[in-house]
Amino acid sequence: MDQKEVLEMLDSVSKGIITPEEALKKLKTAPFDDLGYAMIDNHRGIRQGVPEVIYGAGKTTEQICGIVSRMLENGANDIIISRLAPESAEVLANHCDLEYHPVPRFGIVNRDTERKKVGSIVVASGGTSDMAVCEEAALTAEVLGNKVTRLYDVGVAGLHRLLSRLDVLTSARVIIAVAGMEGALPSVIGGLVSCPVIAVPTSVGYGANLGGIAALLSMLNSCASGVSVVNIDNGFGAGFLASRINQMEGIK
Amino acid sequence: MDQKEVLEMLDSVSKGIITPEEALKKLKTAPFDDLGYAMIDNHRGIRQGVPEVIYGAGKTTEQICGIVSRMLENGANDIIISRLAPESAEVLANHCDLEYHPVPRFGIVNRDTERKKVGSIVVASGGTSDMAVCEEAALTAEVLGNKVTRLYDVGVAGLHRLLSRLDVLTSARVIIAVAGMEGALPSVIGGLVSCPVIAVPTSVGYGANLGGIAALLSMLNSCASGVSVVNIDNGFGAGFLASRINQMEGIK
Amino acid sequence: MDQKEVLEMLDSVSKGIITPEEALKKLKTAPFDDLGYAMIDNHRGIRQGVPEVIYGAGKTTEQICGIVSRMLENGANDIIISRLAPESAEVLANHCDLEYHPVPRFGIVNRDTERKKVGSIVVASGGTSDMAVCEEAALTAEVLGNKVTRLYDVGVAGLHRLLSRLDVLTSARVIIAVAGMEGALPSVIGGLVSCPVIAVPTSVGYGANLGGIAALLSMLNSCASGVSVVNIDNGFGAGFLASRINQMEGIK
Amino acid sequence: MDQKEVLEMLDSVSKGIITPEEALKKLKTAPFDDLGYAMIDNHRGIRQGVPEVIYGAGKTTEQICGIVSRMLENGANDIIISRLAPESAEVLANHCDLEYHPVPRFGIVNRDTERKKVGSIVVASGGTSDMAVCEEAALTAEVLGNKVTRLYDVGVAGLHRLLSRLDVLTSARVIIAVAGMEGALPSVIGGLVSCPVIAVPTSVGYGANLGGIAALLSMLNSCASGVSVVNIDNGFGAGFLASRINQMEGIK
Amino acid sequence: MDQKEVLEMLDSVSKGIITPEEALKKLKTAPFDDLGYAMIDNHRGIRQGVPEVIYGAGKTTEQICGIVSRMLENGANDIIISRLAPESAEVLANHCDLEYHPVPRFGIVNRDTERKKVGSIVVASGGTSDMAVCEEAALTAEVLGNKVTRLYDVGVAGLHRLLSRLDVLTSARVIIAVAGMEGALPSVIGGLVSCPVIAVPTSVGYGANLGGIAALLSMLNSCASGVSVVNIDNGFGAGFLASRINQMEGIK
Amino acid sequence: MDQKEVLEMLDSVSKGIITPEEALKKLKTAPFDDLGYAMIDNHRGIRQGVPEVIYGAGKTTEQICGIVSRMLENGANDIIISRLAPESAEVLANHCDLEYHPVPRFGIVNRDTERKKVGSIVVASGGTSDMAVCEEAALTAEVLGNKVTRLYDVGVAGLHRLLSRLDVLTSARVIIAVAGMEGALPSVIGGLVSCPVIAVPTSVGYGANLGGIAALLSMLNSCASGVSVVNIDNGFGAGFLASRINQMEGIK
Amino acid sequence: MDQKEVLEMLDSVSKGIITPEEALKKLKTAPFDDLGYAMIDNHRGIRQGVPEVIYGAGKTTEQICGIVSRMLENGANDIIISRLAPESAEVLANHCDLEYHPVPRFGIVNRDTERKKVGSIVVASGGTSDMAVCEEAALTAEVLGNKVTRLYDVGVAGLHRLLSRLDVLTSARVIIAVAGMEGALPSVIGGLVSCPVIAVPTSVGYGANLGGIAALLSMLNSCASGVSVVNIDNGFGAGFLASRINQMEGIK
Amino acid sequence: MDQKEVLEMLDSVSKGIITPEEALKKLKTAPFDDLGYAMIDNHRGIRQGVPEVIYGAGKTTEQICGIVSRMLENGANDIIISRLAPESAEVLANHCDLEYHPVPRFGIVNRDTERKKVGSIVVASGGTSDMAVCEEAALTAEVLGNKVTRLYDVGVAGLHRLLSRLDVLTSARVIIAVAGMEGALPSVIGGLVSCPVIAVPTSVGYGANLGGIAALLSMLNSCASGVSVVNIDNGFGAGFLASRINQMEGIK
Repeated sequence: MDQKEVLEMLDSVSKGIITPEEALKKLKTAPFDDLGYAMIDNHRGIRQGVPEVIYGAGKTTEQICGIVSRMLENGANDIIISRLAPESAEVLANHCDLEYHPVPRFGIVNRDTERKKVGSIVVASGGTSDMAVCEEAALTAEVLGNKVTRLYDVGVAGLHRLLSRLDVLTSARVIIAVAGMEGALPSVIGGLVSCPVIAVPTSVGYGANLGGIAALLSMLNSCASGVSVVNIDNGFGAGFLASRINQMEGIK
Repeated sequence: MDQKEVLEMLDSVSKGIITPEEALKKLKTAPFDDLGYAMIDNHRGIRQGVPEVIYGAGKTTEQICGIVSRMLENGANDIIISRLAPESAEVLANHCDLEYHPVPRFGIVNRDTERKKVGSIVVASGGTSDMAVCEEAALTAEVLGNKVTRLYDVGVAGLHRLLSRLDVLTSARVIIAVAGMEGALPSVIGGLVSCPVIAVPTSVGYGANLGGIAALLSMLNSCASGVSVVNIDNGFGAGFLASRINQMEGIK
Repeated sequence: MDQKEVLEMLDSVSKGIITPEEALKKLKTAPFDDLGYAMIDNHRGIRQGVPEVIYGAGKTTEQICGIVSRMLENGANDIIISRLAPESAEVLANHCDLEYHPVPRFGIVNRDTERKKVGSIVVASGGTSDMAVCEEAALTAEVLGNKVTRLYDVGVAGLHRLLSRLDVLTSARVIIAVAGMEGALPSVIGGLVSCPVIAVPTSVGYGANLGGIAALLSMLNSCASGVSVVNIDNGFGAGFLASRINQMEGIK
Repeated sequence: MDQKEVLEMLDSVSKGIITPEEALKKLKTAPFDDLGYAMIDNHRGIRQGVPEVIYGAGKTTEQICGIVSRMLENGANDIIISRLAPESAEVLANHCDLEYHPVPRFGIVNRDTERKKVGSIVVASGGTSDMAVCEEAALTAEVLGNKVTRLYDVGVAGLHRLLSRLDVLTSARVIIAVAGMEGALPSVIGGLVSCPVIAVPTSVGYGANLGGIAALLSMLNSCASGVSVVNIDNGFGAGFLASRINQMEGIK
Repeated sequence: MDQKEVLEMLDSVSKGIITPEEALKKLKTAPFDDLGYAMIDNHRGIRQGVPEVIYGAGKTTEQICGIVSRMLENGANDIIISRLAPESAEVLANHCDLEYHPVPRFGIVNRDTERKKVGSIVVASGGTSDMAVCEEAALTAEVLGNKVTRLYDVGVAGLHRLLSRLDVLTSARVIIAVAGMEGALPSVIGGLVSCPVIAVPTSVGYGANLGGIAALLSMLNSCASGVSVVNIDNGFGAGFLASRINQMEGIK
Repeated sequence: MDQKEVLEMLDSVSKGIITPEEALKKLKTAPFDDLGYAMIDNHRGIRQGVPEVIYGAGKTTEQICGIVSRMLENGANDIIISRLAPESAEVLANHCDLEYHPVPRFGIVNRDTERKKVGSIVVASGGTSDMAVCEEAALTAEVLGNKVTRLYDVGVAGLHRLLSRLDVLTSARVIIAVAGMEGALPSVIGGLVSCPVIAVPTSVGYGANLGGIAALLSMLNSCASGVSVVNIDNGFGAGFLASRINQMEGIK
Repeated sequence: MDQKEVLEMLDSVSKGIITPEEALKKLKTAPFDDLGYAMIDNHRGIRQGVPEVIYGAGKTTEQICGIVSRMLENGANDIIISRLAPESAEVLANHCDLEYHPVPRFGIVNRDTERKKVGSIVVASGGTSDMAVCEEAALTAEVLGNKVTRLYDVGVAGLHRLLSRLDVLTSARVIIAVAGMEGALPSVIGGLVSCPVIAVPTSVGYGANLGGIAALLSMLNSCASGVSVVNIDNGFGAGFLASRINQMEGIK
Repeated sequence: MDQKEVLEMLDSVSKGIITPEEALKKLKTAPFDDLGYAMIDNHRGIRQGVPEVIYGAGKTTEQICGIVSRMLENGANDIIISRLAPESAEVLANHCDLEYHPVPRFGIVNRDTERKKVGSIVVASGGTSDMAVCEEAALTAEVLGNKVTRLYDVGVAGLHRLLSRLDVLTSARVIIAVAGMEGALPSVIGGLVSCPVIAVPTSVGYGANLGGIAALLSMLNSCASGVSVVNIDNGFGAGFLASRINQMEGIK
């Protein structure tokens, strides 16, 4: 069952020709490769529009290499590996075509460098120290085919920096606002623009920042509308969601 | 300066004819009515695409009536008043055209019943007790001009209820997933669909739910991609953001 | 030992004629009136420049009346009673000259209406619902002899409101920034001015605001310098400290 | 007093021939070996059906070797040592017949490889990174004589993986559901089956997972009935309890 | 499709004649009554061995009566309504055969008083104030057909009370240990018996008990094996799970 | 002013010959040695009956040696250094007569080995892993001149171990009950004896023990009377307080 | 078995004539009256030196009256009922000789007004609002036969009040230091005296006091030695423990 | 635009000749150097009276050197680098004139050693272990031109140390009170003086100090007026704010 067949089947679902249950049942006949330690979901790209992403943090170098190998056999490209340790990256680079970014510890295997980038996502950050999270978000969005503008170190304690870039902000389709410490950036941006704002709290700070909880709570309580929040330091999640929103089709 | 002038000015901004700073300065010449206890931001509709919303929880009946009166003088309609106490609603209904929903304690003044509704937002909930939050989200989205489908009491402990509605879920442009207790609904939905999912934790539950914190943490840690979170019980915020995403134009 | 004698004694201390220990010992001979349930510190005005303040929250009407009576016998005026319940205020008003403010539940006995007000304190707030805390701060500062400017409902989600009052902010000697929800106001103000900023988190909000903890943490992590924080809803403490700073003498 | 005598005595208790107090008193005449740093409870196997288990985390290699030696002298086998560091395992292996599993850091001394395994316990996990906790649970249950089926990497964000194994789940006598992050797996499984479900939260995740607290709270608030919870990462406890339930005799 | 047919179908599943997926699909054709505010899961009794239970806390009297009516039309009996307010109970009693227990606020509609009770569940509590939670657990277990022995006010601070009932404890098939304050009871019981122990923390206490969190944490950290935990005050959940375990068939 | 003079002075205070203020003033004339980084309180022994204790955790080897040197010059002995790192101990041992205990990281300089030990303090612990904290408590009490009985590994999950030592417990003047995990030991002991019980929570455990918070909360909520609590892992504090209570004189 | 017999038996235990186990067994033959809702421990007075205390908070008026009646039948006096609601007190007063203190909601039945009071306990408090907790402590100690000195409203922000009472403090055998807000009183007192200090945090305060948690943490971290802590607002526990310490016999 | 021009412009603002908006707009024409990873705010010195401060904690040696180089090119001196790692300091010292303090990890580049110091700031600490935070505060204040008096190791458990320095305290214009553990120092000092007190909680302590949260909460709840709080371990913030207050001009 190749991708075209899947699309035809889903089309039948949307037209009511077959039920979702029947479709689900078909998809389940061969949906994953079981490696023992992991079940690779080859159809995720089909269901959700993006290939499976490997969260590198809890996995050994061997497991990561194994999963990548199997995915490559299945013809995947633009394979994202987040939280990839430098040592694992070094080993992995011997086995495949890996682009590695050390600051966000972010790897891309078989990157499709020709992929067209569309729309407009802005990644804004409160300070230099938030850069790793920002880059995880920005790279994720770029790999998924989005145009990304970086706007770093524009925290609210130096408001004029942010205001001088108002044009960039107001022309974005989606904004990812990354901040540690008091986490006020998304609220201020949210009050200035009319596009969705994805707030990413970071663990940057010390003492009463409680490992990012202070920024997280601040963002959840934002008095600006149009702001939603992802987990602390979750640059990948923000980039992924921003891509979904940015690439939405217009209402017919 | 009427709305048309404002739009022309913003158009000039987007074309680079005038700078955002100049535009901002113009907007600031008369941006709000100062009632002493509140500054009504008449241009918010202009900046953000929706009129100012009144958060009724911390305000007296007199303050609410005062703000509504001034907004009506300025020609506003579809004025949303969230967390509006029944007693305040009763008084307010004597002064203006109020549509009041007691379960979510939600009021709409001068509702434009002719407004065309577009796109497709689904509001799904884990249980009957989440209904107040769901309705706050659904009504907000409807007032802002969106088509809304309600899918209540489809919690993950009875998975077949949710799966039997898979067609509704997969045809949505945005999904608002509302749940208290363990807050697992957004994760399960997030794994089934390819549109943005806005998770709303509710304070429904007892004991170790900690007033909704359990559901909130659960949602922030969702292993499904494409999910973001708003504050506990924040149906309004979810409905507002869903509207923004649902009404996005397609990428050119 | 009247006030003049005390001042002479303290002068001797500053000149090294008598030691602080000797002075402390003298002060201790009769420093308070013991009412059984309370020890009234009549010399607090001497030590700290302001009369003892009555925290009304945990006291019965009888206790409050008793303390006020004794203080009046000792010739006090400008007696502040914070968190004074309306019922207690009603009773107290029958016994003395009470000025009562119901919103902040704030009473002043024997107010010296002729007192000259000096300097410049600004009380800025994020929203209308923070008004009770703001007024507690503002009234405290006014009773203690300071000029106060109120700047309410200028939260960061509508940044232009705040910026349009930049002149008021930059001409203050001290600013009290009051905010609930995400508590971002002090950070933004702190980045715009060069005077001390006292941040007051309020319990306004719901859900993940955790009764004001969200705003408190946000303020403690402010990336703006020159900001310090008092307890949640502690308008009195902010007003008292602002008065101390505002009334500082210049460096010789 | 050998094991047969103990059983006879307990039988007398159940028949009311002697009181539990008398039995307890007899058991207490020589119940443990005091090593100074530890009291080995040789009769625990009698009271609770399993030999004493060594929690290796807080003990030195010397202490562990000492306890094992004494237990071996007393004729124990199937001695479980949880949280056993690799260095300690290396030393211990020189002194006795040790089977060591490095991923869960789990050791078994004098394993009775002939032991018959009964019933049916399923260990299901949300992701690959939960494997150490899963294996601690599965090995514990196996050592205690239970048949165990592993079902790893079936998290709720890819629901079809879980549903395709519904037959395995519904034929279990007990299910151990292990999950980090949002911890939703036990709720979903709990709604599908009619056997007891033991939920094990893991510390896998980052940021707002708070070291496993998010998953723990989620599981405690499960809206599915028949679910109970053990401590974060407590694979041993889950395996032990699952064994007790799995091996229950039928009601007469 | 009546209950007999369902059982036959499930039997076919267990014999491999039809797949669970096929069975699930069949069950889904008409699985619930949609009342608008609630979806009544009439087949839950089939899937999980017990009829749907109504959590009364978040529902209006009207909603509860509506759900009960529909369930009665479908022939249900032994309908449990937990957290049922006295006012709702009064109204409900006019419409159906309700047995109401005010202390645990627990209602049973159409109770089958002839139902045979099997096995042996002990409900033990630390103190008199835990009685509401205990009764919720005990009544739930009794309605579900289990023999229940109550052992109240046997907290660990008066150990001799507990020890004098050792015979009752050691002859149980499952024990529900309910305690507030320091929550030590399950650990002590867990060390004395060899059956599963379900620990229920209660919110009884004050100050640092944090609404039951102290007892909850204590129980999760129990050093006794064979103990698992449910949510604070969740007597129903404990009774339900105890019933499942008590009624297990023996291993073939 | 030597110790005898001090005692005479204090005697005068107790007889009313001189006031406490006068005595305090005298003591203050030369109460400490200022080393720049520390003020050694040479009179603490006088005020509180024990010499100053050095908390080694936050201090460099140089600072510790400096403080010890100065104290030795002043003729101190039985100098306790808690939380003393092995490396610091090695250096310190070259300069003075140090007795070092590596498990509790506890040092004693110039120990008076002839000191008579009085009364009866029992140190009981839940498990082997609590030994470091136990030893800190026991050694502190011994250095301060108390007879100490150790009763380790008598946790509540094996109640018969504890009960078999009832004679030791009931003959103590003070009991220090040390426990991690669920922290139930002090409650059980508190219900068995009639002497003061000092509860010491330890950080032993994992997951929901939250670094000892679970045990701490458990102990604070003890339903046994006569129990009080010190900080997590604070063996020194418990030993010090136990000594004070143990050495109390009888009521005249 | 009357009290004399019990004492003789315990004497035999201390001489080794009978074992504690035998004694325990004897005590267990009739140790309590089972009222169904409560087990009255008539021998507690024997074991612990004080009669059973009734914690009134979670009990109905009927239950309290029932327990008191049974205790009176057994000849008890000086029966303490803590947290006794005024309505319950009113009813109870009709049935027995009740002394009721409304501020601490504290009742004493059949008070032995002739009881001799010994030793010296000081109850010191930070402020007037802590009075209810102070009185619970003071009355408990008085009923148990101790001399108590009250020292109220001597908080650390007015240090001279405390210092002027240094004589009272230094002549105490035990001090109960009660404080809300920042809870600093026990640390300051602990540094001034050489007797045991029992710290009682109160829930007095607001905002970041977190219902007494701030004071509790402060007291647990006291840098003064000789301080231990009881639960928030637990005046009874402090008074009970203080009595135990105050009434200790001298070391032989 | 040099500094003189800026001052003239600001003067025009204060005289009303130009509006703050116009001034802000001018300042924004070239306000920062964009290094890619950081935006150096060269005008911060103008807006806030002090040059930009480099928070070293989250930055690489290369980034720090880059920022310092650019600032030196712009003629800055007295450049503060807080939380500067020794390794970074070593590299940086090769490139510029660096004064490095290893205990507080504090660097100053191009220190103006001739700068006149004014006023009077006291830095008081509870214990030796707080020294790093104290020195960060003291050095910050000194670099900014203030006279600083250090008063270390004067914690409240040895009150006489603090009282013997009352003269130093009462002659300060601002006091920075630094304390870990129970954090009581600011309350005690706040009650003795009439100048503003800035409280700095430190993370010094263990167990229930929760990394400084205990001290933080204690300080926020201070019952002394005139006290405000900064983040845990935030010596820089305290020193900066103290400088602002100390250097205030007198009221005209």
